[in-house]
Amino acid sequence: MDERIAKQIAFALELDKEKSVFRQTHLSGHGRNENDAEHAWHMAIMAYLLKEYSNEPVDIARVMIMCLIHDVVEIDAGDTYAYDAEGLATQKAREDAAKERIFSLLPEDQKAEFTAIFDEFEANETAEAKFAHSMDNFQPLILNNSNGGGDWKEHSVTAKKVYGRQSKTKEGSEKLYEITDKIIQENIRKGSLPEG
Amino acid sequence: MDERIAKQIAFALELDKEKSVFRQTHLSGHGRNENDAEHAWHMAIMAYLLKEYSNEPVDIARVMIMCLIHDVVEIDAGDTYAYDAEGLATQKAREDAAKERIFSLLPEDQKAEFTAIFDEFEANETAEAKFAHSMDNFQPLILNNSNGGGDWKEHSVTAKKVYGRQSKTKEGSEKLYEITDKIIQENIRKGSLPEG
Repeated sequence: MDERIAKQIAFALELDKEKSVFRQTHLSGHGRNENDAEHAWHMAIMAYLLKEYSNEPVDIARVMIMCLIHDVVEIDAGDTYAYDAEGLATQKAREDAAKERIFSLLPEDQKAEFTAIFDEFEANETAEAKFAHSMDNFQPLILNNSNGGGDWKEHSVTAKKVYGRQSKTKEGSEKLYEITDKIIQENIRKGSLPEG
Repeated sequence: MDERIAKQIAFALELDKEKSVFRQTHLSGHGRNENDAEHAWHMAIMAYLLKEYSNEPVDIARVMIMCLIHDVVEIDAGDTYAYDAEGLATQKAREDAAKERIFSLLPEDQKAEFTAIFDEFEANETAEAKFAHSMDNFQPLILNNSNGGGDWKEHSVTAKKVYGRQSKTKEGSEKLYEITDKIIQENIRKGSLPEG
C-alpha cells in the first residue's frame, strides 16, 4: 500500500473513536446519550435539508464536511458541555493539541485542508461556518425539546443561558432562530426551563 | 410554526431513529456493533477524504448526502446483513414501504428530492452512486480488518462471498478495489477468511 493511502486509511480508522465520545444530549424517546458521530451525521443532513433558511447562500458541501468533522478533536479532548464553565476554560488548549495530533495522521496537503475546514468552523466568520453553527445548536435543541427539555433540567440550565448560546443560531439563520425562540418560550411556559 | 418547516423538523426528528438501527459490523478495538447513523457519518467523511480515488469526477455534495441518507429506510425495515440470503429476498418490499412512509413526512418538493437521491444510490448508475457504494463497502471493510476479520468469522463468510459484494467497489474506485483485494488476500493468509 502506498504511503499516501495508508495515511488516509489510518486517519479514517482514527475517526472511528468519535463514536465513543458521548454528549449530554439524549436521543429522542428519552433514549441514551448521543455520541459525536451521530450528532455530526444528524447535523450534516439537517444542513442539507434546511439550507433554504441560511441567511446567506452557502456551499453545501463545505457546510456538510464542516458539520461532519467539527468535533473530531473530542477524540482526545472529550466533549465539553455547552454550559460547563470550568471545562470551557481549558477547552481551547486541549482541543488545539488534539487537532495537531489527529490531522497529522493525514498526508500534508490534506492535513492543511482538514485543519482549514476545522478552523473555519471555529472562527465562525464565513456563511458556511455560521450555518454549520446553527445546526450545532438546532440539532440538540429539537432532540431535547422532544424529550420535554430533560437535558436542561438535568443540568439546571436557565433560559438566559440557552439564549446566550443560541445567539449563534441567529447569525446563521434568522428563520431557525425564530423557531428556536418559540421552542424556548414554550419550554419556559411548561416549566421545563426557568427564566433565570 | 408554518407547515413547511414543521414537516422538515418532523423528518429531522424521525431520522434520529437511525441511531438505534444496529449493523453486523463492530467498531474498531473490538467494540460494540455500529449503528446506521455512525456508519453513514463515517462513509460521508471517507467519501470526502478519498474522492481523489473515484474512477470518475464526482459532485462531492451529492455523494455525501447520498451516503448520509442511504440507510434511512432501515428505520422501519431493519438492517439486512450483506450475506443474509433470506433477509435479502424480502428486503426490497420492506424498504419500498419504508421509503414511502419516511419521505412522506417531508414537504412535496423535498419528498421528491430525497427520494431521487435515495433511488440514485440504489440504481448505482451515476458516478456519485458508484463512489458512494465503494464507501458502503470500504468503510466496514477497514473496521472489520482492524478487528482481525471478526465480523466475517462470526457469520462464517467466505472470501468468495466477500469478493462478490466487493465487486461494486471496483465500479466506483479501481484504486480502493486494489486495497480491498490486498486486505482480503491478507485475511485469507491469516486464516480469518476461508476461500470458500
